[in-house]
Amino acid sequence: MSNRRIILAKRPIGQVDTTTTKLVDGPTPACAEGEALVKVGMLSIDPTIRTWMNDAPGYLPPIGIGDVIRSGGAGVVTESLSDLYQVGDLVYGVTGWQEWSLASETKKFTVIPPGMGFDLATAMNVLGMTGLTAYFGLTDVGAFKPGDVVVVSGAAGATGSVVGQIAKARGAKKVVGIAGGKEKCAEVVEELGFDDCLDHREPKIARRLHEACPEGIDLYFDNVGGEILDAVLGNIALRARIVICGAISQYNTMERPQGLVNTPMLIARRARMEGFLIFDYASRFLEAQMQIATMVLDGTLKHREHLVNGLEHAPDALNLLFSGGNHGKTLVIVDDAVQLG
Amino acid sequence: MSNRRIILAKRPIGQVDTTTTKLVDGPTPACAEGEALVKVGMLSIDPTIRTWMNDAPGYLPPIGIGDVIRSGGAGVVTESLSDLYQVGDLVYGVTGWQEWSLASETKKFTVIPPGMGFDLATAMNVLGMTGLTAYFGLTDVGAFKPGDVVVVSGAAGATGSVVGQIAKARGAKKVVGIAGGKEKCAEVVEELGFDDCLDHREPKIARRLHEACPEGIDLYFDNVGGEILDAVLGNIALRARIVICGAISQYNTMERPQGLVNTPMLIARRARMEGFLIFDYASRFLEAQMQIATMVLDGTLKHREHLVNGLEHAPDALNLLFSGGNHGKTLVIVDDAVQLG
Repeated sequence: MSNRRIILAKRPIGQVDTTTTKLVDGPTPACAEGEALVKVGMLSIDPTIRTWMNDAPGYLPPIGIGDVIRSGGAGVVTESLSDLYQVGDLVYGVTGWQEWSLASETKKFTVIPPGMGFDLATAMNVLGMTGLTAYFGLTDVGAFKPGDVVVVSGAAGATGSVVGQIAKARGAKKVVGIAGGKEKCAEVVEELGFDDCLDHREPKIARRLHEACPEGIDLYFDNVGGEILDAVLGNIALRARIVICGAISQYNTMERPQGLVNTPMLIARRARMEGFLIFDYASRFLEAQMQIATMVLDGTLKHREHLVNGLEHAPDALNLLFSGGNHGKTLVIVDDAVQLG
Repeated sequence: MSNRRIILAKRPIGQVDTTTTKLVDGPTPACAEGEALVKVGMLSIDPTIRTWMNDAPGYLPPIGIGDVIRSGGAGVVTESLSDLYQVGDLVYGVTGWQEWSLASETKKFTVIPPGMGFDLATAMNVLGMTGLTAYFGLTDVGAFKPGDVVVVSGAAGATGSVVGQIAKARGAKKVVGIAGGKEKCAEVVEELGFDDCLDHREPKIARRLHEACPEGIDLYFDNVGGEILDAVLGNIALRARIVICGAISQYNTMERPQGLVNTPMLIARRARMEGFLIFDYASRFLEAQMQIATMVLDGTLKHREHLVNGLEHAPDALNLLFSGGNHGKTLVIVDDAVQLG
């Protein structure tokens, strides 16, 4: 059996291109004592993968040249020499961009319980890291409370769309999205039920934020960083909370970005800006998944997945996140036989 | 009786100059029912005064053209038609840059209890807003804990010097100051007992911060903003807390500053950046003043005041804060007969 995998060939400058990664073949990894062999079914394509390609400090070490691209993914256990995994288990973990991956006791995968009533794509979207990030970012880091005026960037994206819908369902005074293009903005309002959505491709975003939220912004969930974050800082309310989840506008930039100049507003408004990583909330994932599952089942939480077929298209799928060409949570199907029971 | 006062003649662009303010004379204000007349003795010169001169949103409205420059100050009550103030009381409040001020039930002044054993300048420095800002910024906003690696900018300044000394006294693993010039840096280490002090006038502050704090910065108390804040962001430890107290590097700038580009480190380090205003802690001032007074009396907390004589020199005194020409807490003596009993 072979294991096709995508390795980092060269660190990208700006956008990932055909020279950045390389599809290579090799033998399926051998399963040693304490390990389990996983047949990868689906990959989660997230902006953070782009940050791991840089030789820069981050929350994980950079991907090494020649190493498989680090990525979340789901698969099925086909062989196990560990008590943690049984053959046939559907598991989620850091599979990497490849057909076969090893789970172990140190490199742990999560067993996805069968009979959840969701397909794998849904499980990897709203019930997976994406939905969990939205949930804990809003409720815990952002300390959301009913009556808050909430602004979410990347509002049509996988995380942002969930943030806004949960805020709305839990009694936000107003939920305003920010997205790229008229079509996405319309969808955010009409399909996802946000009160308003601003197109960041149009000029004067700071002024339009002020018009949309004249009473100030209580909670901002930031997926983009850069100029939009700065515009929001200029419009925060007293004791505002800014949740820094991502900075997608910065990940591909080649020049030094313009930088934030409105941080002194944190003083005037006694406000807080805080970053987080979803892994820190692992002990509470089940609590959130129950809440999210309920909302999906009763129709309160709408979700959409953008499926890309074939491991070899993973680099293109990653670029979709930056061009805005995706429509919902981006997932790459590596083996469509792997499904949730 | 006349009341000399300094009014805002023109909004400054950059540094305050001779056209910004105007010394004018007029009658002493009349004391109405519910008010008390205060003979101003000493003014507190703080960087925030410069921000109030701009026509920009802030935590207080801008000073109007023709209005007395807003400022903290202390004085003695000479006439009272209010139960809150007795003739002879030494009081602290927003006196403005003038010889006479009115306290009332809405524009409240704090009565400074007699017999504290401190002179007025000490009371206005470490026991006043400056010391309280340092105390609550470090302990509450910064959630200081023993073992923290603490960095303080404006380390030779009124607030920064107190922050570092309290952190040191309470068991910081390391306290590193940032100050302007060799002389100030030497003083911060030798006289105030910081472990190290970096001169921000020398190049490569980010690299020197890394060398001084190779394990990362747990708590940063920021008085300056701008490039130094950005350099610190690049060197924060996991769960770091950045206390935004001031941004003096930005207050006089005429061009758009370079801006912060390292805020995505808040994600990688799960860190928090928070602004605050000391007025929000009013109910707990006494608690902090007791702690600070004890440290002053037992010699743990060193303090220094930079006294400038004469109301007419208040604008120059304000500029000292930006040139770094002051040496300790800057106070303007308006009437040296006003003293603590």
